[in-house]
Amino acid sequence: MHIDTGDQALRARALRVVPGGMYGHMRTATLPAGYPQFFERGEGCHIWDADGRRYLDFMCAWGPIVLGHRHPAVEEAVQRQMAKGDLLNGPTERMVELAERLVRLVAHADWALFAKNGTDATTTCVTLARVKTGRRKIVVAKGAYHGAVPWCSPSVLGVTAEDRAHLSTYIYNDIASLEKAVARAGDDLAGIVVSAFRHDYGFDQELPDPAFAKCARALADASGAALILDDVRAGFRLTLAGSWDLVDVQPDLSAWSKAIANGHALAAVTGNDEFRDAASQLFVTGSFWCGSVPMAAALATLDELERIDGPAQMHAMGTRLREGLAAQAAAAGIGIRQSGPPQMPTLMFEDDPDCAKGFLFCQEALKRGVYLHPRHNMFLSAAHTAADIDEALAVTREAFGVLDRS
Amino acid sequence: MHIDTGDQALRARALRVVPGGMYGHMRTATLPAGYPQFFERGEGCHIWDADGRRYLDFMCAWGPIVLGHRHPAVEEAVQRQMAKGDLLNGPTERMVELAERLVRLVAHADWALFAKNGTDATTTCVTLARVKTGRRKIVVAKGAYHGAVPWCSPSVLGVTAEDRAHLSTYIYNDIASLEKAVARAGDDLAGIVVSAFRHDYGFDQELPDPAFAKCARALADASGAALILDDVRAGFRLTLAGSWDLVDVQPDLSAWSKAIANGHALAAVTGNDEFRDAASQLFVTGSFWCGSVPMAAALATLDELERIDGPAQMHAMGTRLREGLAAQAAAAGIGIRQSGPPQMPTLMFEDDPDCAKGFLFCQEALKRGVYLHPRHNMFLSAAHTAADIDEALAVTREAFGVLDRS
Repeated sequence: MHIDTGDQALRARALRVVPGGMYGHMRTATLPAGYPQFFERGEGCHIWDADGRRYLDFMCAWGPIVLGHRHPAVEEAVQRQMAKGDLLNGPTERMVELAERLVRLVAHADWALFAKNGTDATTTCVTLARVKTGRRKIVVAKGAYHGAVPWCSPSVLGVTAEDRAHLSTYIYNDIASLEKAVARAGDDLAGIVVSAFRHDYGFDQELPDPAFAKCARALADASGAALILDDVRAGFRLTLAGSWDLVDVQPDLSAWSKAIANGHALAAVTGNDEFRDAASQLFVTGSFWCGSVPMAAALATLDELERIDGPAQMHAMGTRLREGLAAQAAAAGIGIRQSGPPQMPTLMFEDDPDCAKGFLFCQEALKRGVYLHPRHNMFLSAAHTAADIDEALAVTREAFGVLDRS
Repeated sequence: MHIDTGDQALRARALRVVPGGMYGHMRTATLPAGYPQFFERGEGCHIWDADGRRYLDFMCAWGPIVLGHRHPAVEEAVQRQMAKGDLLNGPTERMVELAERLVRLVAHADWALFAKNGTDATTTCVTLARVKTGRRKIVVAKGAYHGAVPWCSPSVLGVTAEDRAHLSTYIYNDIASLEKAVARAGDDLAGIVVSAFRHDYGFDQELPDPAFAKCARALADASGAALILDDVRAGFRLTLAGSWDLVDVQPDLSAWSKAIANGHALAAVTGNDEFRDAASQLFVTGSFWCGSVPMAAALATLDELERIDGPAQMHAMGTRLREGLAAQAAAAGIGIRQSGPPQMPTLMFEDDPDCAKGFLFCQEALKRGVYLHPRHNMFLSAAHTAADIDEALAVTREAFGVLDRS
């Protein structure tokens, strides 16, 4: 029996056995026509869809792929650990090594614990803040993404009022609004949650204003609450020390995931000594949290990022892309806005309320083998070379041309 | 520099960089002295601790290892998928194949979605029940384990009253108490959560009374609420059709994890057509949920479990162990209670309120190379042969002897 495994055939098969044919952030429903739903393989900075089409990829599996797909050093470490075992009746030495590594690399970290999802890490941070302080209120930035469970999901489907009873919001980078949110929490403030930078879906990104970051730290200190950094999306791409190290502010607790193990399933919480007792008391766990293979992958990923200065390299390549796009747009007389750190660029078009320009631009790039995203921040990896960026720019030049003529 | 990597040395290193030296269910703090905290490798039904001591293992990484460590067919499928790629910008054909497989194997399933932790799956089921019904109340069995996040954690540290505002409890297998809990929820009942069987930590296990199971189904039907089966711990060990298929009752939604991929990190939710729309609307996701390698591992695991009738084989070996232990205890005049399905046995001692007998028995077995658990259900895998069971029984005979003389 012949089974068609192309993208359209897989979509039809999926529609029968997967809700809506696909769920979550990898669902293509919000992307323009032409974006494939199913993929076949990846190598370095290239991915192939289920129809065998190759793309130069600027999403990196939505963040986890930080060194490129199937990076040899990571995969070698994975093979070495797999030959011994992955999940046993307790952790292996890999867990101790990885905790030691994070304590050395991450400026604020005195300890680490490991989980599987970014949401595991953010939820654990919030719970730890409550354990340590004995208080309940958590302030979060309006519109920020911290996971997809009821307390923080961007959707309110299936969420009860009680799931968010102790949450209040502030506007990222707005000191007055943060002060107000903290004041509202009063003496019940357990924690202030901040993203590494403002990376809300469909908006221009904003780097943290250093004055805002210092204010968040001071407000947490003044009330004895936890400053919680959600570094799930940005962690290990901007620096290995924790993203707010760049603005010289250290959190008490950080949530990590995505890039930590180059695509292997792993998350981490790091904390300072003030929160060690709370973390020692809390019961938090999962069936696969002690798996050694993803930890071996993380050690190799961090080794390599350190060895090549991955963040600096991605910064250089992201800057090359950004400058190229800016020059092309200017030459074509098309207004664009580029935002976010160069390693995680967002490209938006002026006068494009319905994203029609962004969709057309990305569709034209996709047709020519370059996978961009019209509304979400994109991701560079250390596998992107100058030649790859120049290849992408040759394509975007044509895409701007189509836009100019449309 | 020589770094000592034995268990004691790793404990000392961990104490500096991991909260309490270890966290969660794999922490040895509640086990008798002598239990290793750190492990080195696994092969079939054997594990080696960080000091190189080999054990015949009856915990199977607390459930996930269902075919034995490093099972060749599973690892071959893993290698095949790793050669293509794991995490891409969307799922691969493996996701469709695995959803198709679960729909074929699991009696109640019309669709499936995938996650990483058992807790992801149970939380998604509860949220789906609320989406579908537009109601809030969830009834759960007192003392049942459904995960380690605030709504369901066995610990109340860091938990607010609101996290459990819409939960009420019943006693497993107690029809009157279930009816009362459902009546308390009134017309706000969203879901009834049941475990595959009663497997609470530190208690004798109870298989589901068929009358209780039928009553749970009837109460859910009468109120239009979801019957949610937490099959995370038992799933694919007792039958591949869903554990309540054994009592001829089908849930609306099931949560799966542990044994689904022989130790690779994966969880699943299956549901019937009644819940398909709700599942299509819900936004639920995680960075690694589309990883293809664990899905390839799951396909190979389910293939193998089906081919060899893994549940029947584990039932036979668990029965051999149970009958051997019963005969030995009777011969020694020691009162024991064995409970739970033979694939997931629990052994408790009569007149042992502080578990002193259980601790001594397990310590003596451990010294002789057999890894048992004194308070939690244990797990057989399909790698346990009759010779392995007989080897374990030769050791338990000596352990009963020590107990008899103590």
